[in-house]
Amino acid sequence: MSAVQSREIHLKQRPNGVPTAADFELVTNSLPAPGPGEMLIRNVYMSVDPYMRGRMVERESYVPPFKLGEVLQGHAVGQVVQSNIDRFPAGTYVSHMFGWREYAISDGTMVMPVDPKIALSAYLGVLGMPGLTAYAGLLKHGRPKEGETVFVSAAAGAVGSLVCQIAKIKGCTVIGTAGSDDKVKYLLDELGCDFALNYKTCGDLTKALSAKVPKGVDVYFDNVGGSHLVAALNVMRAFGRIPVCGMIDQYNATGLPEGPGNIIQVIPKRISITGFIVSDHYDMMPEFMADMSQWISAGRIKWRETVSDGIAAAPAAFIGLFHGDNLGKAVVRLGPDKV
Amino acid sequence: MSAVQSREIHLKQRPNGVPTAADFELVTNSLPAPGPGEMLIRNVYMSVDPYMRGRMVERESYVPPFKLGEVLQGHAVGQVVQSNIDRFPAGTYVSHMFGWREYAISDGTMVMPVDPKIALSAYLGVLGMPGLTAYAGLLKHGRPKEGETVFVSAAAGAVGSLVCQIAKIKGCTVIGTAGSDDKVKYLLDELGCDFALNYKTCGDLTKALSAKVPKGVDVYFDNVGGSHLVAALNVMRAFGRIPVCGMIDQYNATGLPEGPGNIIQVIPKRISITGFIVSDHYDMMPEFMADMSQWISAGRIKWRETVSDGIAAAPAAFIGLFHGDNLGKAVVRLGPDKV
Repeated sequence: MSAVQSREIHLKQRPNGVPTAADFELVTNSLPAPGPGEMLIRNVYMSVDPYMRGRMVERESYVPPFKLGEVLQGHAVGQVVQSNIDRFPAGTYVSHMFGWREYAISDGTMVMPVDPKIALSAYLGVLGMPGLTAYAGLLKHGRPKEGETVFVSAAAGAVGSLVCQIAKIKGCTVIGTAGSDDKVKYLLDELGCDFALNYKTCGDLTKALSAKVPKGVDVYFDNVGGSHLVAALNVMRAFGRIPVCGMIDQYNATGLPEGPGNIIQVIPKRISITGFIVSDHYDMMPEFMADMSQWISAGRIKWRETVSDGIAAAPAAFIGLFHGDNLGKAVVRLGPDKV
Repeated sequence: MSAVQSREIHLKQRPNGVPTAADFELVTNSLPAPGPGEMLIRNVYMSVDPYMRGRMVERESYVPPFKLGEVLQGHAVGQVVQSNIDRFPAGTYVSHMFGWREYAISDGTMVMPVDPKIALSAYLGVLGMPGLTAYAGLLKHGRPKEGETVFVSAAAGAVGSLVCQIAKIKGCTVIGTAGSDDKVKYLLDELGCDFALNYKTCGDLTKALSAKVPKGVDVYFDNVGGSHLVAALNVMRAFGRIPVCGMIDQYNATGLPEGPGNIIQVIPKRISITGFIVSDHYDMMPEFMADMSQWISAGRIKWRETVSDGIAAAPAAFIGLFHGDNLGKAVVRLGPDKV
């Protein structure tokens, strides 16, 4: 096979505040044939996720920042088209970390074969990183007990929508917040939430939550931070748990954001606030895959996707995450399932 | 025995901001002889503690607020002078909950006999509620491992000074903050802290901490909140634990205080922030008493007290807690050990 032309998205400049199209650049790269111990993957779907915003900032963190003028990274699923790795013969479908590009050369590191009988994009959502995030965050850090009340923010998003459904499976009362009436309807009608609020129109969030769940909440799964975290602290019951998955309210802050002024409530209410990262919980992958597959087969877990088409649409799909454009998992389709 | 004249401190008005003398009233009460199933206790020491500020506010909490125009409550140690309870014969020394008064009538609820061979005031500090608070908060919620670094705020106070020493016993590096050079000297020379900072003069607390412990801290025992919590989040290492015992910085806030603007750091650093209350940990009392008695005998735990004299001095002793007047445990001596 001759050199492959692969279009990819580079980080042109570090975003200041909410990312804009000018922060990204579409570049065509000519890939050589895979060398010994390498393979060439044609990507079918790539993921855009809020956490990627953090990697666009130049700072020390648990993963190094994206480099300016280089291709971005992220989860993707694709098909091996040419291979010098025995365990990934050509034709194999795989999930891997080289998203934001149409083709990738890989040495097999952090590559997993996936079952093409299931929708490939599911490996970027319900059966992928967002799925494990919801599962591990809720069950390990939220520790919901049957009969308890679970509050989920960004509940119509990739992670939140799964947290809501897993909490229902575990016998909890679930209240979710989202940023549009359509999303609220989705939470109630499709995801089985007991209560849902449009945080943009419900007025004071503490009062709105208290009106729906007067006894308060036992677990708050935080995807948002900011005023959501403040309201959660206000309505939290004694010994409540707050797994912190994300704080999308703060990802684009240009100064130091306002902190929760009522943080002192952790003392009288004996609240635990625990930040977590999905990659610390890969040990839960086998039970996650077993439970999730069974729940999907039984029709107990549903999901939706917001699909953009073509590599050129990836920056807009990513930017849309911060404007609430997505219902469920946002993915970008880079090519057909089969060629 | 005829009626006893007992002077006691009433809450005259709810403090607005830092409490002042005008919030309290000294009242003389005439106590009847104890009835059937009751005893009369002459108090020798009473405790003043920062947590009492919270009970002076009219709000729902884990304990009901103090009532206006009524005697305050708190820990005290005293001697039974007249008794109709078999298990507490006259002469017995006891710790109990009816402080802020010279004499108390009790039916024996929440009363424990104490050993008068040990300084009676110790039962209000190192062997009492502050001792168990330090022990349970650090060991159960802080979970320090040998070789880790523990940061303690209000480190020269009743609880903080014990946390520092228990952390040293557990093989940790300990850094404490306090509000005067004398207290800093006390932390280094008497309590065995590895490092100590006067937070009022050290400049930016994050930088000052980083200069002393460049690798960061694994456990932050929070007695203070506010800018101490912000600095702790900044210097925290991955998987750090923050047991929150108190937030004295915020007890006298008249509006909503500023929250930690860097709370998002809980995610990349996978930090746990856990509020706790000592009364949830009474199950640890036997191991606490065993460990603490042994450590005291071995000279591994030291303590100091700031003693005020006479019931009339109690409001000033309490108010002094918020001005940093006390080194170690603040107590009020109400009478001689023996009469």
